[in-house]
Amino acid sequence: MTVTNKMKEQFRILQGGLSSDVKKADVGEGTGNFVKNGGDNMAWADMFAPDPSIPESVQKASIEAILNGSSAHYTMPIGLLELREEIAKHVSKKTGLTIHPSRNVIITPGSDAGFIFSLLPFLKKGDEVLIPDPCYPSNYLNCKLLEATPISVPTYPEDNYQIRIEEMEKRVTSRTKAVILTHPNNPTTTVYRKENLMELSKFIIKHDLILICDQAFEDHIFDGIEFVCPCTLPGMWERTVTICSLSKGYGLSGFRIAYLYTNEEIMDKYYGACVNIVGAPCTISTMGAIAALQDETILPEYYQRLDRRRTIAYDILSTIPGVKMKKSESGILSWLDVSQLGTGQEVADYIKENANVLVNDGAAYGQMGQGHIRIVTACFAKDEDCIIRLERIKKALTQLAKEKEIV
Amino acid sequence: MTVTNKMKEQFRILQGGLSSDVKKADVGEGTGNFVKNGGDNMAWADMFAPDPSIPESVQKASIEAILNGSSAHYTMPIGLLELREEIAKHVSKKTGLTIHPSRNVIITPGSDAGFIFSLLPFLKKGDEVLIPDPCYPSNYLNCKLLEATPISVPTYPEDNYQIRIEEMEKRVTSRTKAVILTHPNNPTTTVYRKENLMELSKFIIKHDLILICDQAFEDHIFDGIEFVCPCTLPGMWERTVTICSLSKGYGLSGFRIAYLYTNEEIMDKYYGACVNIVGAPCTISTMGAIAALQDETILPEYYQRLDRRRTIAYDILSTIPGVKMKKSESGILSWLDVSQLGTGQEVADYIKENANVLVNDGAAYGQMGQGHIRIVTACFAKDEDCIIRLERIKKALTQLAKEKEIV
Repeated sequence: MTVTNKMKEQFRILQGGLSSDVKKADVGEGTGNFVKNGGDNMAWADMFAPDPSIPESVQKASIEAILNGSSAHYTMPIGLLELREEIAKHVSKKTGLTIHPSRNVIITPGSDAGFIFSLLPFLKKGDEVLIPDPCYPSNYLNCKLLEATPISVPTYPEDNYQIRIEEMEKRVTSRTKAVILTHPNNPTTTVYRKENLMELSKFIIKHDLILICDQAFEDHIFDGIEFVCPCTLPGMWERTVTICSLSKGYGLSGFRIAYLYTNEEIMDKYYGACVNIVGAPCTISTMGAIAALQDETILPEYYQRLDRRRTIAYDILSTIPGVKMKKSESGILSWLDVSQLGTGQEVADYIKENANVLVNDGAAYGQMGQGHIRIVTACFAKDEDCIIRLERIKKALTQLAKEKEIV
Repeated sequence: MTVTNKMKEQFRILQGGLSSDVKKADVGEGTGNFVKNGGDNMAWADMFAPDPSIPESVQKASIEAILNGSSAHYTMPIGLLELREEIAKHVSKKTGLTIHPSRNVIITPGSDAGFIFSLLPFLKKGDEVLIPDPCYPSNYLNCKLLEATPISVPTYPEDNYQIRIEEMEKRVTSRTKAVILTHPNNPTTTVYRKENLMELSKFIIKHDLILICDQAFEDHIFDGIEFVCPCTLPGMWERTVTICSLSKGYGLSGFRIAYLYTNEEIMDKYYGACVNIVGAPCTISTMGAIAALQDETILPEYYQRLDRRRTIAYDILSTIPGVKMKKSESGILSWLDVSQLGTGQEVADYIKENANVLVNDGAAYGQMGQGHIRIVTACFAKDEDCIIRLERIKKALTQLAKEKEIV
């Protein structure tokens, strides 16, 4: 018997599991063993990892939730009201929208669970989804897992990865159901500019599409670039689901607290299915997340550290022969064009071998990620600890450039 | 614009969300407000709630994970190796099977998220799923949300709710893909007996089906009844996915730690999709769960308390005029036939009005649940606190029986 014959095609052909030879950093014991053996993991988007980094206010509230014993028990499946209230305040302040904690917000155990949940009501076999490329890999695979077809729409470094609406127009069909946007972008750190999002929203409305907007990296935007939530643009609230998270901005990825916000009509269905699909978020984490949102010192402090870190990363990595890169516009990542040195996988393998550091092959993020690597340059709490690894990467790639006779 | 027109039919027609008039205890602020106003919630399967009930060993490990700061960070998406090792040991001991922590086990953030994840690769439009009724409501709705058709198979109190294979045979078609079993059953607390499961497994193999077996309540089985995991029966390992949880047995529902175990062929696909669908479990909870599984005092102590509690509940509730019930076979629930007193909803409403306690209408658990109510009789840490509520329920229902002229 081959039980996978009973699966849908999308799962029958799925790679990346335990019997796969796909090199995936985050499944199986590969990463864990690499780190145990003294290697460094700069391939997971996990700020300051592996160092301790829970803000004091969050520690205090989380410990209190354990000591008082209340966290043994479920919150509501849609998330505790007190957390939804904090989130509603936070989003209202950020967007200027009126966000109701019991009508527009749902908590999910991390943004991955929230992301596929957001898509599940909409996507069915035959649907097509337009996806600016490069982007978070799940943008493609989530569509496939739900039997829809992801349509990659190239974005270009020479445009600073802004979306060319003509490339969208070329690919839209009567089967197109949605656009998925990672904003700010992962891996490129690109913040889509207001005028670009205005154009995009007109395109979305014209073709009567919905927008799923993953804003996991929204909290830290540099150089004074204006961050615009697409759901605030004219006609977009009616058709946008926004996914946010405390993982990246607050460095609380292990807490697994994310949230969706959208209009009441869509939220009605999310509420109706939430017991089945997300269950409920962790109660300890819920109490920690409330404290995080109430502590107004965390984001500004992390902003300073991340701004300094991206500068350090840029200064070290951009001077490597054969590497092209821009200073990051947001968040915790650096995105390097290494096409002169080899494929992304070749260069990632070389770094693993010679610098003992895991980084990501850009090809995982789409066709337009080929010849690139992604490095999580906000790993390690202390700049010095990060600098040591970045210098090792630099040394290795400089050697590789030499071998390739690039100066 | 009506954005729900863009949804699949199953979601367009979905009730139970914020704009629904369906009475659902666990969505919206209804339950929270009821409790805030002095009411008691015995409708959530949450042991000892709302009282503090985290075992000391679990508290200690969870607090340590916060203090050392490590829990800021992700575990692997399939769950931390150390927790999978504990689970593999636990399941191996329980089943006699050889369970490999990196080939047969995946951690999920609660068993609801694990349950729909387990079904996602298998169920597609047109598939039918046989479901012994009554059972956990998500058994039906999960199938619908994945575009498959749940086929209710009645089980009868006069059989002690064991499965009549002829009722299964009557309903099996060429479109039947799977059987979903809640074992022990929620709401009836029924433990399916070995001979019944042997028959069921022959039926499943004969028709080449898969089995999704939700064992969330497996940890506390009373009266020396043998608990058999269907995956251990001949020919069943190849086609069974088992869902377990620390929520019920360990009273750690707020921790959101559950797990699936199955053969490598199926697990390969779960591993391949886990980043997309479950993300990763909470890190603090992971460390707490390791401590829980290592602490061999927890389950025996809770067993004593739950055994005593079900007896208390039986003694108080079974003597109400017009109520028929059996002593619970497992877990934290009591299941009452109240059909002489009204529909389940009428009786639940009467209890809410007159005893200020929320209980569940049995109809939520299927056709065969009509005329029944479910009460979570393991609520409240102290027997006395539970007894007060059970006596209130008894008083109210005795009054109702009087009104109905039942003696």
